Amino acid sequence: MPRNLKLTLSYDGSEFSGWQVQPGRRTVQGELQAALVRLTGEEHLPQGSGRTDAGVHALAQVVSWTTDSKVPTGNFVSALNDVLPPSIRVLSVEEARPDFHARTSAKAKTYQYRIYRGDICPPFLARYVYHHPYPLDEPSMRDAAEFILGEHDFTSFAAVDPERHERVLDPEEETNNVRKVFASSFSREGDELIYRVRGNGFLHHMVRNLVGTFLLVGKGTLTWHGLGAILEAKDRSAAGATAPAEGLYLVSVEY
Amino acid sequence: MPRNLKLTLSYDGSEFSGWQVQPGRRTVQGELQAALVRLTGEEHLPQGSGRTDAGVHALAQVVSWTTDSKVPTGNFVSALNDVLPPSIRVLSVEEARPDFHARTSAKAKTYQYRIYRGDICPPFLARYVYHHPYPLDEPSMRDAAEFILGEHDFTSFAAVDPERHERVLDPEEETNNVRKVFASSFSREGDELIYRVRGNGFLHHMVRNLVGTFLLVGKGTLTWHGLGAILEAKDRSAAGATAPAEGLYLVSVEY
Repeated sequence: MPRNLKLTLSYDGSEFSGWQVQPGRRTVQGELQAALVRLTGEEHLPQGSGRTDAGVHALAQVVSWTTDSKVPTGNFVSALNDVLPPSIRVLSVEEARPDFHARTSAKAKTYQYRIYRGDICPPFLARYVYHHPYPLDEPSMRDAAEFILGEHDFTSFAAVDPERHERVLDPEEETNNVRKVFASSFSREGDELIYRVRGNGFLHHMVRNLVGTFLLVGKGTLTWHGLGAILEAKDRSAAGATAPAEGLYLVSVEY
Repeated sequence: MPRNLKLTLSYDGSEFSGWQVQPGRRTVQGELQAALVRLTGEEHLPQGSGRTDAGVHALAQVVSWTTDSKVPTGNFVSALNDVLPPSIRVLSVEEARPDFHARTSAKAKTYQYRIYRGDICPPFLARYVYHHPYPLDEPSMRDAAEFILGEHDFTSFAAVDPERHERVLDPEEETNNVRKVFASSFSREGDELIYRVRGNGFLHHMVRNLVGTFLLVGKGTLTWHGLGAILEAKDRSAAGATAPAEGLYLVSVEY
Protein backbone atom coordinates (compact mmCIF):
# COMPACT_ATOMS: atom_id res chain seq x y z
CA MET A 1 0.00 0.00 0.00
CA PRO A 2 1.77 3.20 -1.11
CA ARG A 3 1.91 6.08 1.34
CA ASN A 4 1.02 9.57 0.22
CA LEU A 5 3.39 11.98 1.96
CA LYS A 6 2.97 15.68 2.64
CA LEU A 7 6.39 17.38 2.90
CA THR A 8 6.88 20.95 4.10
CA LEU A 9 10.11 22.66 3.13
CA SER A 10 11.84 26.00 3.34
CA TYR A 11 14.40 27.23 0.83
CA ASP A 12 16.67 30.13 -0.02
CA GLY A 13 15.57 30.88 -3.58
CA SER A 14 18.69 32.90 -4.37
CA GLU A 15 20.58 29.65 -4.98
CA PHE A 16 18.15 28.10 -7.47
CA SER A 17 16.65 28.62 -10.90
CA GLY A 18 13.22 28.43 -9.28
CA TRP A 19 11.15 25.48 -8.09
CA GLN A 20 10.45 23.60 -11.28
CA VAL A 21 12.85 20.98 -12.60
CA GLN A 22 14.67 22.11 -15.77
CA PRO A 23 17.41 20.31 -17.69
CA GLY A 24 20.87 21.63 -16.81
CA ARG A 25 19.58 23.97 -14.08
CA ARG A 26 19.78 23.72 -10.31
CA THR A 27 16.18 23.81 -9.11
CA VAL A 28 14.49 23.05 -5.79
CA GLN A 29 12.28 20.35 -7.28
CA GLY A 30 15.31 18.79 -8.97
CA GLU A 31 17.36 18.78 -5.75
CA LEU A 32 14.46 17.31 -3.77
CA GLN A 33 13.88 14.64 -6.42
CA ALA A 34 17.58 13.70 -6.34
CA ALA A 35 17.45 13.42 -2.54
CA LEU A 36 14.32 11.23 -2.69
CA VAL A 37 15.93 8.99 -5.32
CA ARG A 38 18.99 8.61 -3.14
CA LEU A 39 16.86 7.73 -0.13
CA THR A 40 14.30 5.41 -1.74
CA GLY A 41 15.36 4.67 -5.33
CA GLU A 42 12.00 6.02 -6.52
CA GLU A 43 12.31 8.52 -9.36
CA HIS A 44 8.91 10.15 -9.76
CA LEU A 45 8.72 13.93 -9.35
CA PRO A 46 7.61 15.51 -6.08
CA GLN A 47 4.64 17.84 -6.70
CA GLY A 48 4.78 21.34 -5.21
CA SER A 49 1.84 23.55 -4.25
CA GLY A 50 2.97 25.81 -7.08
CA ARG A 51 6.08 27.04 -8.82
CA THR A 52 8.28 29.71 -7.37
CA ASP A 53 10.48 31.68 -9.76
CA ALA A 54 14.26 32.02 -9.63
CA GLY A 55 15.24 34.02 -6.55
CA VAL A 56 11.87 33.60 -4.78
CA HIS A 57 12.09 32.10 -1.30
CA ALA A 58 9.85 29.73 0.64
CA LEU A 59 9.27 29.65 4.37
CA ALA A 60 6.91 26.67 3.96
CA GLN A 61 6.40 25.22 0.51
CA VAL A 62 4.19 22.11 0.56
CA VAL A 63 4.95 19.06 -1.58
CA SER A 64 3.10 15.79 -2.15
CA TRP A 65 4.86 12.56 -3.03
CA THR A 66 3.71 8.95 -2.98
CA THR A 67 6.10 6.19 -2.04
CA ASP A 68 6.31 2.42 -1.92
CA SER A 69 9.54 2.54 0.06
CA LYS A 70 9.99 1.01 3.51
CA VAL A 71 11.60 4.17 4.95
CA PRO A 72 9.54 5.03 8.07
CA THR A 73 7.69 8.34 7.70
CA GLY A 74 9.38 9.63 10.85
CA ASN A 75 12.85 9.16 9.31
CA PHE A 76 12.35 11.29 6.20
CA VAL A 77 13.07 14.71 7.72
CA SER A 78 16.58 13.99 8.98
CA ALA A 79 17.44 11.59 6.14
CA LEU A 80 16.49 14.17 3.49
CA ASN A 81 18.22 17.03 5.32
CA ASP A 82 21.39 14.93 5.47
CA VAL A 83 21.59 14.84 1.66
CA LEU A 84 19.96 18.14 0.64
CA PRO A 85 22.05 21.32 0.40
CA PRO A 86 21.76 23.63 3.47
CA SER A 87 19.78 26.09 1.31
CA ILE A 88 16.85 23.61 1.29
CA ARG A 89 15.50 22.29 4.58
CA VAL A 90 12.69 19.80 5.06
CA LEU A 91 10.68 21.01 8.05
CA SER A 92 8.19 18.14 8.37
CA VAL A 93 6.98 14.99 6.62
CA GLU A 94 3.61 13.44 7.45
CA GLU A 95 1.23 10.93 5.91
CA ALA A 96 -1.64 12.49 3.99
CA ARG A 97 -4.90 11.06 2.67
CA PRO A 98 -4.51 9.15 -0.60
CA ASP A 99 -6.23 11.88 -2.60
CA PHE A 100 -4.10 14.74 -1.19
CA HIS A 101 -2.24 16.71 -3.86
CA ALA A 102 -0.11 19.70 -2.87
CA ARG A 103 -1.34 21.83 -5.77
CA THR A 104 -4.94 20.80 -6.41
CA SER A 105 -5.89 20.37 -2.74
CA ALA A 106 -4.67 23.86 -1.78
CA LYS A 107 -7.38 26.15 -0.39
CA ALA A 108 -5.32 29.25 0.32
CA LYS A 109 -1.79 30.59 0.14
CA THR A 110 0.03 33.38 1.92
CA TYR A 111 2.96 35.34 0.48
CA GLN A 112 5.04 38.14 1.89
CA TYR A 113 7.20 40.71 0.13
CA ARG A 114 10.00 42.46 2.05
CA ILE A 115 11.05 45.99 1.06
CA TYR A 116 14.12 47.35 2.84
CA ARG A 117 13.71 51.11 3.41
CA GLY A 118 17.01 52.05 5.06
CA ASP A 119 19.65 53.99 3.14
CA ILE A 120 22.21 51.17 3.23
CA CYS A 121 21.00 47.60 2.87
CA PRO A 122 22.97 45.28 5.18
CA PRO A 123 25.01 42.84 3.04
CA PHE A 124 23.39 39.93 4.89
CA LEU A 125 19.95 40.97 3.57
CA ALA A 126 20.93 41.64 -0.03
CA ARG A 127 19.45 38.36 -1.35
CA TYR A 128 16.45 38.47 0.94
CA VAL A 129 14.82 41.87 0.48
CA TYR A 130 14.17 44.42 -2.23
CA HIS A 131 16.13 47.55 -1.37
CA HIS A 132 14.10 50.68 -2.02
CA PRO A 133 15.50 53.60 0.01
CA TYR A 134 13.63 56.33 -1.89
CA PRO A 135 10.59 58.22 -0.53
CA LEU A 136 7.30 56.28 -0.48
CA ASP A 137 3.89 57.40 0.70
CA GLU A 138 3.30 54.38 2.89
CA PRO A 139 -0.24 55.30 4.08
CA SER A 140 -1.40 55.43 0.43
CA MET A 141 0.23 52.04 -0.18
CA ARG A 142 -1.77 50.65 2.76
CA ASP A 143 -4.98 51.97 1.19
CA ALA A 144 -4.01 50.44 -2.16
CA ALA A 145 -3.33 47.06 -0.55
CA GLU A 146 -6.80 47.09 1.03
CA PHE A 147 -8.40 48.05 -2.27
CA ILE A 148 -7.68 44.68 -3.88
CA LEU A 149 -9.41 42.68 -1.10
CA GLY A 150 -12.15 40.36 -2.36
CA GLU A 151 -12.77 38.65 -5.68
CA HIS A 152 -11.38 40.26 -8.82
CA ASP A 153 -10.22 39.39 -12.28
CA PHE A 154 -6.47 39.84 -11.88
CA THR A 155 -5.59 39.64 -15.60
CA SER A 156 -3.78 42.99 -15.36
CA PHE A 157 -1.47 41.47 -12.75
CA ALA A 158 -0.79 38.15 -14.48
CA ALA A 159 2.39 37.39 -16.39
CA VAL A 160 1.63 37.56 -20.08
CA ASP A 161 2.72 33.99 -20.89
CA PRO A 162 -0.66 32.21 -20.57
CA GLU A 163 0.71 28.73 -19.99
CA ARG A 164 2.54 29.76 -16.81
CA HIS A 165 -0.40 30.42 -14.50
CA GLU A 166 0.68 29.03 -11.23
CA ARG A 167 -2.57 27.33 -10.29
CA VAL A 168 -4.31 25.30 -12.94
CA LEU A 169 -7.09 23.26 -11.41
CA ASP A 170 -8.82 22.18 -14.59
CA PRO A 171 -8.86 23.17 -18.27
CA GLU A 172 -11.75 25.56 -17.67
CA GLU A 173 -9.81 27.54 -15.11
CA GLU A 174 -6.81 27.92 -17.38
CA THR A 175 -8.38 30.97 -18.95
CA ASN A 176 -9.94 32.25 -15.75
CA ASN A 177 -7.97 34.92 -13.92
CA VAL A 178 -10.51 35.51 -11.13
CA ARG A 179 -8.97 35.06 -7.69
CA LYS A 180 -10.16 35.92 -4.20
CA VAL A 181 -7.90 37.89 -1.84
CA PHE A 182 -8.69 37.31 1.84
CA ALA A 183 -6.02 39.57 3.33
CA SER A 184 -3.76 42.23 1.81
CA SER A 185 -1.81 44.70 3.93
CA PHE A 186 1.46 46.52 4.46
CA SER A 187 3.19 46.67 7.82
CA ARG A 188 6.32 48.40 9.01
CA GLU A 189 8.83 46.28 10.92
CA GLY A 190 11.89 48.36 11.73
CA ASP A 191 13.57 49.29 8.46
CA GLU A 192 11.36 46.95 6.47
CA LEU A 193 8.02 47.57 4.81
CA ILE A 194 6.37 44.17 4.47
CA TYR A 195 3.44 43.32 2.23
CA ARG A 196 1.42 40.23 3.18
CA VAL A 197 -1.29 38.73 1.03
CA ARG A 198 -3.50 35.68 1.51
CA GLY A 199 -5.75 34.40 -1.24
CA ASN A 200 -7.35 31.31 -2.73
CA GLY A 201 -4.80 31.26 -5.53
CA PHE A 202 -2.30 33.45 -7.32
CA LEU A 203 -1.55 33.93 -11.01
CA HIS A 204 2.03 33.78 -12.19
CA HIS A 205 3.90 36.95 -11.07
CA MET A 206 0.71 38.25 -9.44
CA VAL A 207 2.21 39.19 -6.07
CA ARG A 208 5.28 40.84 -7.64
CA ASN A 209 3.07 42.73 -10.12
CA LEU A 210 0.81 43.91 -7.28
CA VAL A 211 3.85 45.10 -5.31
CA GLY A 212 5.25 46.85 -8.40
CA THR A 213 1.91 48.64 -8.77
CA PHE A 214 1.67 49.53 -5.06
CA LEU A 215 5.15 51.05 -5.44
CA LEU A 216 3.75 53.36 -8.15
CA VAL A 217 1.11 54.42 -5.61
CA GLY A 218 3.86 54.99 -3.05
CA LYS A 219 5.79 57.15 -5.49
CA GLY A 220 2.68 59.21 -6.26
CA THR A 221 2.64 58.12 -9.92
CA LEU A 222 -0.70 56.38 -9.37
CA THR A 223 -3.53 57.08 -6.94
CA TRP A 224 -5.07 54.08 -5.26
CA HIS A 225 -8.30 54.99 -7.01
CA GLY A 226 -6.47 54.27 -10.24
CA LEU A 227 -6.20 50.63 -9.18
CA GLY A 228 -9.88 50.12 -10.07
CA ALA A 229 -9.19 51.20 -13.64
CA ILE A 230 -6.16 48.88 -13.81
CA LEU A 231 -8.25 45.89 -12.68
CA GLU A 232 -10.96 46.79 -15.20
CA ALA A 233 -8.47 47.11 -18.04
CA LYS A 234 -7.68 43.37 -17.83
CA ASP A 235 -4.41 44.22 -19.53
CA ARG A 236 -0.96 43.57 -18.10
CA SER A 237 0.41 46.79 -19.57
CA ALA A 238 -1.98 48.84 -17.42
CA ALA A 239 -0.27 47.82 -14.16
CA GLY A 240 3.19 48.51 -12.73
CA ALA A 241 6.46 46.66 -13.33
CA THR A 242 7.18 43.27 -11.78
CA ALA A 243 8.94 43.80 -8.43
CA PRO A 244 12.28 41.94 -8.08
CA ALA A 245 12.16 38.27 -7.07
CA GLU A 246 14.45 38.52 -4.03
CA GLY A 247 11.81 40.20 -1.82
CA LEU A 248 9.18 37.49 -2.29
CA TYR A 249 8.46 34.59 0.10
CA LEU A 250 5.87 31.81 -0.07
CA VAL A 251 4.87 31.87 3.60
CA SER A 252 2.31 29.05 3.88
CA VAL A 253 -0.21 26.88 2.05
CA GLU A 254 -3.53 25.94 3.64
CA TYR A 255 -5.53 22.81 2.89
CA MET B 1 47.38 67.98 0.97
CA PRO B 2 46.29 64.32 0.90
CA ARG B 3 43.40 63.31 3.12
CA ASN B 4 43.63 60.23 5.30
CA LEU B 5 40.24 58.50 5.27
CA LYS B 6 38.75 56.06 7.77
CA LEU B 7 36.22 53.80 6.06
CA THR B 8 33.89 51.46 7.96
CA LEU B 9 32.38 48.59 6.02
CA SER B 10 30.24 45.52 6.48
CA TYR B 11 30.47 42.41 4.31
CA ASP B 12 29.02 38.97 3.80
CA GLY B 13 32.16 36.83 3.93
CA SER B 14 30.49 33.84 2.27
CA GLU B 15 30.99 35.48 -1.12
CA PHE B 16 34.72 36.16 -0.81
CA SER B 17 38.07 34.42 -0.44
CA GLY B 18 38.66 36.51 2.67
CA TRP B 19 39.76 40.10 3.12
CA GLN B 20 43.24 40.11 1.63
CA VAL B 21 43.81 40.72 -2.05
CA GLN B 22 44.99 37.58 -3.89
CA PRO B 23 45.60 37.13 -7.62
CA GLY B 24 42.66 35.45 -9.34
CA ARG B 25 40.46 35.47 -6.22
CA ARG B 26 37.47 37.60 -5.32
CA THR B 27 38.40 39.30 -2.05
CA VAL B 28 36.95 42.19 -0.08
CA GLN B 29 40.15 44.22 -0.24
CA GLY B 30 40.35 43.60 -3.99
CA GLU B 31 36.75 44.66 -4.58
CA LEU B 32 37.19 47.77 -2.44
CA GLN B 33 40.42 48.67 -4.23
CA ALA B 34 38.69 48.29 -7.62
CA ALA B 35 35.86 50.56 -6.46
CA LEU B 36 38.33 53.19 -5.21
CA VAL B 37 40.26 53.06 -8.50
CA ARG B 38 37.02 53.54 -10.40
CA LEU B 39 36.06 56.50 -8.24
CA THR B 40 39.42 58.28 -7.96
CA GLY B 41 41.91 56.65 -10.33
CA GLU B 42 44.21 56.00 -7.35
CA GLU B 43 45.49 52.44 -7.19
CA HIS B 44 47.11 52.02 -3.78
CA LEU B 45 45.70 49.32 -1.50
CA PRO B 46 43.21 50.15 1.26
CA GLN B 47 44.55 48.90 4.63
CA GLY B 48 42.18 46.89 6.84
CA SER B 49 42.32 46.59 10.63
CA GLY B 50 43.20 42.95 10.04
CA ARG B 51 42.55 40.06 7.70
CA THR B 52 39.39 38.05 7.83
CA ASP B 53 39.48 34.54 6.37
CA ALA B 54 37.26 33.16 3.62
CA GLY B 55 33.68 32.89 4.89
CA VAL B 56 34.21 35.21 7.88
CA HIS B 57 31.83 38.18 8.03
CA ALA B 58 32.25 41.78 9.16
CA LEU B 59 29.66 44.00 10.76
CA ALA B 60 32.16 46.86 10.91
CA GLN B 61 35.62 46.35 9.44
CA VAL B 62 37.73 49.51 9.54
CA VAL B 63 39.97 50.56 6.66
CA SER B 64 42.41 53.43 6.21
CA TRP B 65 43.21 54.95 2.84
CA THR B 66 44.91 58.20 1.84
CA THR B 67 43.77 60.10 -1.20
CA ASP B 68 44.76 63.08 -3.33
CA SER B 69 41.45 63.00 -5.18
CA LYS B 70 38.98 65.88 -5.22
CA VAL B 71 35.98 63.66 -4.34
CA PRO B 72 34.36 65.27 -1.27
CA THR B 73 34.59 63.04 1.81
CA GLY B 74 30.80 63.15 2.16
CA ASN B 75 30.32 61.62 -1.29
CA PHE B 76 32.37 58.46 -0.78
CA VAL B 77 29.71 56.34 0.95
CA SER B 78 27.09 56.48 -1.78
CA ALA B 79 29.63 56.60 -4.63
CA LEU B 80 31.39 53.45 -3.38
CA ASN B 81 28.14 51.62 -2.64
CA ASP B 82 26.99 52.35 -6.19
CA VAL B 83 29.90 50.36 -7.61
CA LEU B 84 30.55 47.73 -4.92
CA PRO B 85 28.62 44.43 -4.95
CA PRO B 86 25.63 44.34 -2.53
CA SER B 87 27.60 41.87 -0.36
CA ILE B 88 29.96 44.73 0.63
CA ARG B 89 28.50 47.96 2.03
CA VAL B 90 30.41 51.05 3.09
CA LEU B 91 28.74 52.32 6.26
CA SER B 92 30.72 55.52 6.80
CA VAL B 93 33.73 57.47 5.55
CA GLU B 94 35.33 60.18 7.62
CA GLU B 95 38.60 62.10 7.68
CA ALA B 96 41.16 60.77 10.13
CA ARG B 97 44.37 62.21 11.53
CA PRO B 98 47.34 61.88 9.16
CA ASP B 99 48.95 59.20 11.32
CA PHE B 100 45.83 57.04 11.61
CA HIS B 101 46.33 53.47 10.35
CA ALA B 102 43.47 50.96 10.56
CA ARG B 103 45.75 48.13 11.76
CA THR B 104 48.49 49.74 13.81
CA SER B 105 46.24 52.31 15.51
CA ALA B 106 43.73 49.69 16.71
CA LYS B 107 43.35 49.49 20.49
CA ALA B 108 40.71 46.76 20.73
CA LYS B 109 38.56 44.51 18.60
CA THR B 110 35.32 42.69 19.20
CA TYR B 111 34.27 39.45 17.48
CA GLN B 112 31.16 37.33 17.79
CA TYR B 113 30.58 33.70 16.89
CA ARG B 114 27.03 32.46 16.22
CA ILE B 115 26.15 28.82 16.95
CA TYR B 116 22.68 27.72 15.81
CA ARG B 117 21.27 25.20 18.32
CA GLY B 118 17.92 24.29 16.74
CA ASP B 119 17.43 20.90 15.07
CA ILE B 120 16.88 22.36 11.62
CA CYS B 121 18.93 25.37 10.57
CA PRO B 122 16.79 27.80 8.53
CA PRO B 123 18.18 27.93 4.96
CA PHE B 124 18.48 31.71 5.26
CA LEU B 125 21.02 31.29 8.09
CA ALA B 126 23.14 28.55 6.52
CA ARG B 127 25.99 30.91 5.53
CA TYR B 128 25.75 32.99 8.67
CA VAL B 129 25.90 30.57 11.62
CA TYR B 130 27.59 27.33 12.62
CA HIS B 131 24.88 24.70 13.00
CA HIS B 132 25.48 22.53 16.05
CA PRO B 133 22.20 20.88 17.14
CA TYR B 134 23.83 18.31 19.46
CA PRO B 135 23.79 18.50 23.28
CA LEU B 136 26.10 21.08 24.86
CA ASP B 137 26.63 21.89 28.51
CA GLU B 138 26.17 25.62 28.08
CA PRO B 139 26.85 26.63 31.72
CA SER B 140 30.28 24.97 31.54
CA MET B 141 30.97 26.80 28.29
CA ARG B 142 30.14 30.08 30.04
CA ASP B 143 32.68 29.23 32.75
CA ALA B 144 35.29 28.35 30.13
CA ALA B 145 34.71 31.65 28.32
CA GLU B 146 35.31 33.54 31.57
CA PHE B 147 38.46 31.56 32.28
CA ILE B 148 40.41 33.14 29.41
CA LEU B 149 39.79 36.73 30.61
CA GLY B 150 42.93 38.76 31.13
CA GLU B 151 46.42 38.55 29.68
CA HIS B 152 47.64 35.17 28.41
CA ASP B 153 50.04 33.67 25.93
CA PHE B 154 47.57 32.35 23.34
CA THR B 155 50.08 30.28 21.35
CA SER B 156 47.88 27.18 21.78
CA PHE B 157 45.07 29.03 20.01
CA ALA B 158 47.12 30.51 17.16
CA ALA B 159 47.18 29.10 13.65
CA VAL B 160 50.44 27.26 13.16
CA ASP B 161 51.65 29.34 10.19
CA PRO B 162 53.68 31.99 12.02
CA GLU B 163 53.60 34.60 9.25
CA ARG B 164 49.82 34.85 9.36
CA HIS B 165 49.34 36.51 12.75
CA GLU B 166 46.61 38.98 12.23
CA ARG B 167 48.17 41.83 14.15
CA VAL B 168 51.83 42.53 13.65
CA LEU B 169 52.78 45.82 15.24
CA ASP B 170 56.53 45.52 15.05
CA PRO B 171 59.17 42.83 14.44
CA GLU B 172 59.44 42.17 18.16
CA GLU B 173 55.78 41.38 18.47
CA GLU B 174 55.86 38.94 15.59
CA THR B 175 56.96 36.22 17.93
CA ASN B 176 54.87 37.40 20.85
CA ASN B 177 51.54 35.64 21.29
CA VAL B 178 50.49 37.42 24.46
CA ARG B 179 47.12 39.12 24.12
CA LYS B 180 44.73 40.65 26.62
CA VAL B 181 41.06 39.64 26.64
CA PHE B 182 38.77 42.30 28.13
CA ALA B 183 35.46 40.45 27.70
CA SER B 184 34.61 36.84 26.85
CA SER B 185 31.12 35.42 27.30
CA PHE B 186 28.40 33.23 25.84
CA SER B 187 24.79 34.34 25.66
CA ARG B 188 21.66 32.62 24.47
CA GLU B 189 19.48 34.50 22.00
CA GLY B 190 16.57 32.33 20.96
CA ASP B 191 17.95 29.33 19.07
CA GLU B 192 21.43 30.83 18.95
CA LEU B 193 24.31 30.52 21.36
CA ILE B 194 26.52 33.53 20.76
CA TYR B 195 30.11 33.96 21.89
CA ARG B 196 31.41 37.53 22.16
CA VAL B 197 35.01 38.41 22.80
CA ARG B 198 36.77 41.77 23.06
CA GLY B 199 40.53 42.04 23.30
CA ASN B 200 43.54 44.18 22.45
CA GLY B 201 44.40 41.93 19.53
CA PHE B 202 43.81 38.47 18.16
CA LEU B 203 46.14 35.91 16.63
CA HIS B 204 45.22 34.26 13.36
CA HIS B 205 42.34 31.77 13.93
CA MET B 206 42.34 32.63 17.65
CA VAL B 207 38.60 33.19 18.03
CA ARG B 208 37.69 30.11 15.99
CA ASN B 209 40.20 28.00 17.93
CA LEU B 210 38.82 29.28 21.24
CA VAL B 211 35.27 28.42 20.12
CA GLY B 212 36.39 24.97 18.95
CA THR B 213 37.90 24.41 22.40
CA PHE B 214 34.82 25.75 24.25
CA LEU B 215 32.79 23.25 22.20
CA LEU B 216 34.94 20.45 23.66
CA VAL B 217 34.01 21.77 27.11
CA GLY B 218 30.34 21.84 26.04
CA LYS B 219 30.56 18.22 24.89
CA GLY B 220 32.18 17.18 28.19
CA THR B 221 35.43 16.12 26.47
CA LEU B 222 37.31 18.83 28.36
CA THR B 223 36.68 20.48 31.72
CA TRP B 224 37.14 24.20 31.88
CA HIS B 225 39.95 23.58 34.36
CA GLY B 226 41.73 21.84 31.49
CA LEU B 227 41.91 25.18 29.71
CA GLY B 228 44.72 26.27 32.05
CA ALA B 229 46.82 23.33 30.92
CA ILE B 230 46.08 24.11 27.28
CA LEU B 231 47.24 27.72 27.70
CA GLU B 232 50.37 26.55 29.49
CA ALA B 233 51.19 24.00 26.79
CA LYS B 234 51.76 26.82 24.26
CA ASP B 235 51.11 24.22 21.60
CA ARG B 236 48.35 24.41 18.98
CA SER B 237 47.77 20.65 19.15
CA ALA B 238 46.70 20.92 22.80
CA ALA B 239 43.54 22.90 21.97
CA GLY B 240 40.36 22.02 20.06
CA ALA B 241 39.70 22.14 16.33
CA THR B 242 39.17 25.40 14.46
CA ALA B 243 35.43 26.19 14.43
CA PRO B 244 33.97 26.79 10.92
CA ALA B 245 34.40 30.24 9.39
CA GLU B 246 30.71 30.94 8.69
CA GLY B 247 29.83 31.60 12.36
CA LEU B 248 32.46 34.34 12.86
CA TYR B 249 31.88 38.11 12.64
CA LEU B 250 34.27 41.00 13.16
CA VAL B 251 31.90 43.24 15.15
CA SER B 252 33.92 46.41 15.75
CA VAL B 253 37.38 47.92 16.01
CA GLU B 254 38.20 50.54 18.62
CA TYR B 255 40.88 53.26 18.30
